[in-house]
Amino acid sequence: MRVVAFGGGHGLSASLRALRGQGHDITAVVTVADDGGSSGRLRSERSALPPGDLRQALAALAADRPDTRQTAELFQHRFAPDGRDHSPLDGHTVGNLVLVGLMEQLGDPVSALDHAARMVDASGRVLPMAVKAVGIEADIRGADPRRPGMLLTVVGQHAVAVAPGHVEAVRLTPADPPACPEAVAAVEQADWLIFGPGSWYTSVIPHLLVPELAAAIVASRARRLVTLNLAAEPETWGLSAADHLAALRWYLPELKVDTVLADGTAVGDPEPVRRAAESLGARLVLAPVAVADGSPRHDPEALGAALVPVLGASR
Amino acid sequence: MRVVAFGGGHGLSASLRALRGQGHDITAVVTVADDGGSSGRLRSERSALPPGDLRQALAALAADRPDTRQTAELFQHRFAPDGRDHSPLDGHTVGNLVLVGLMEQLGDPVSALDHAARMVDASGRVLPMAVKAVGIEADIRGADPRRPGMLLTVVGQHAVAVAPGHVEAVRLTPADPPACPEAVAAVEQADWLIFGPGSWYTSVIPHLLVPELAAAIVASRARRLVTLNLAAEPETWGLSAADHLAALRWYLPELKVDTVLADGTAVGDPEPVRRAAESLGARLVLAPVAVADGSPRHDPEALGAALVPVLGASR
Repeated sequence: MRVVAFGGGHGLSASLRALRGQGHDITAVVTVADDGGSSGRLRSERSALPPGDLRQALAALAADRPDTRQTAELFQHRFAPDGRDHSPLDGHTVGNLVLVGLMEQLGDPVSALDHAARMVDASGRVLPMAVKAVGIEADIRGADPRRPGMLLTVVGQHAVAVAPGHVEAVRLTPADPPACPEAVAAVEQADWLIFGPGSWYTSVIPHLLVPELAAAIVASRARRLVTLNLAAEPETWGLSAADHLAALRWYLPELKVDTVLADGTAVGDPEPVRRAAESLGARLVLAPVAVADGSPRHDPEALGAALVPVLGASR
Repeated sequence: MRVVAFGGGHGLSASLRALRGQGHDITAVVTVADDGGSSGRLRSERSALPPGDLRQALAALAADRPDTRQTAELFQHRFAPDGRDHSPLDGHTVGNLVLVGLMEQLGDPVSALDHAARMVDASGRVLPMAVKAVGIEADIRGADPRRPGMLLTVVGQHAVAVAPGHVEAVRLTPADPPACPEAVAAVEQADWLIFGPGSWYTSVIPHLLVPELAAAIVASRARRLVTLNLAAEPETWGLSAADHLAALRWYLPELKVDTVLADGTAVGDPEPVRRAAESLGARLVLAPVAVADGSPRHDPEALGAALVPVLGASR
C-alpha cells in the first residue's frame, strides 16, 4: 500500500514505527511550524526549515541494522552541557544540524531529506508539509489563568502547545503557505492517508490548513484513517475523543474518513466516539495500542498489529 | 600493501587521495593538536578531540559514489553567516559536529571514527595519533618581528603554524600523551609508513613526539617514505628540503627512511636533498607531483602515479 502519514513529533514517529516493516510504501508528511528549542533557534538563526520533527520521522524510519541504527541514534544525539561552561551547541541534536547543513548545501529541503533518508536507509520518504517554515497562532480562551474567561491570541507553535485554556481557533501564518509539491503528489497517489496520533492543534490539524494539501486530501481516492490520541495534552484539555474528530471536520468540512482507530481503555464509553466517527463516514475500530506501562504512548508493535487488518496486506 | 599515512590537514588529504583506489589497506594517523577555528572551539567548549583534521582525512577516503560523495561534501559543509545576524554555528563544519556527537555518544574516538568512516564507506581507517587532545608549543627565534633575534615560546598549534621566525624546538604538551593503541598496532603491522606532505612542525613531526608511536615507528619492519612539501610555509620559512629531512632526524634520531619523494621543480638542485636523504638511509625519487596551475599543492593523481612504483603493486 502507498501510505501517507501526517503529523509532527512523537505521535508521527509512533505511527511510522508501527507502519514500517509491513511492506508499505511510506511517505511521512511533517509539520514545519516548530519554533521552540533547537528547531526554533535554527529556524531564526539560519532561516532553516525547523528540522526537529523531520529528524524524528527519519529516525523512526531508519533501517533496523547496526550501522543505520547507529546513524539514527547519532541524529537523535542531543548536545548537553558538558559540566563546564555553557556551549553554543547545547540543546541541538546532531540530526538537526545535519539537516540544516544538507538544506544549505543542496538548496532544497526535499533533496536534503532524501539524502538524509539514504544515510539511515529509511524505509520511506520524509517530506515537509510546506517548503517554507510556517507560524501557528491560536485564539485560546483562558490562556491567561488570571483571566479565565478572556479570549487571547497566542502566537507560536510552542506557546500554543503549552498554553492552558480552550483553543477556539487555530491558524497558520501565512494563511496560505506553499505546499511541498512532492507531498501533494504523494497524497494524490496514496492508497491510505493516516492522520494522528499527535498534538491535535499543532501537529495534526496544521496539514488541513495548507490549502493545496487540503485540496489534495479531499480529492485523493485514498482511504483515510484517523488514529486518536491516548490522552489529552495541554492544548486539548477538556476535549473528548469525539471532540477531536469534530475538530478535524471543523477545519476541513469536506474531509471524509473511512476508519477511526482508538484504544478502548483510553476511550472509555465508545458510543459518542462511534457517533462522531460515523458523522465523518467512518467506522470505529477499538484495539489495545498503548504501551504496557500505563503511560499515554502508543506501542509501535501493538499499533502495527492493529493497522494490519485495517490497511490490508501489502506484501 | 598495509599503508599507514601520518599527517594533519591538507597534506595528509592529498596523500590519502593519492593512495586510495590502488588496492592498499590504508590507515591515516592524524594529529590531534589543532586549537584554531571550529576545532579549537569544539575542543575547548566540549572537551572533544579536535575533529577538523580527522574529518578531512575521512572526506579524502570517502568512496567515489554519488551518495558517499554527497555525505563527504556534507561533512565538509561549513556553516557561514546567512546574511543576517551572527549565528553560533558560524565556522563549524557539519562533519566536525558529527564527529563530536559520535565521540560523545560512543564515548570512544576510535569507535566514533570507525562509524563515521562507514557513513562515507571510506577506503581506509582514520585514527587519532593520541586518544586525548594535545598541545603544541615551540621556541621560535624572531616570532616577534619587533625583536628579531629573540627566542620566544609560542603556545598552540595555530599560533606556531602562523608565527614568523625560525622554529628552534617544538614540543607536545603534555610531553608524553597516550598514543592511540589502534594506531600503534597499525604501525606494527604496516608494510609502509608514509610521512608528509604537510605542515612540518605542526602536522608531521608531532607524530614522532608521541613516545609510544615513535617507539612503534622505530621498531616496525615497515618501509618508510617521506613525501616532501612543495613550498615552505610560515612555520618553515628559510628551511630547505634538506633541512626538512634533518628536522625529522633531529626529533627521532633512530628514524630510518627508505625513500624520499620530492617534486623536481620544487626542489631545484637535487644534490643537497639526495645527500640528506642518504644520511637517513633513503634514496631520493623525483617526480612531477604538483598541480598544474603552479600553486604549491600536490595533485592526487600525479602523486598516486608516483607512489605506484615506490610502494609496489598491491592488487
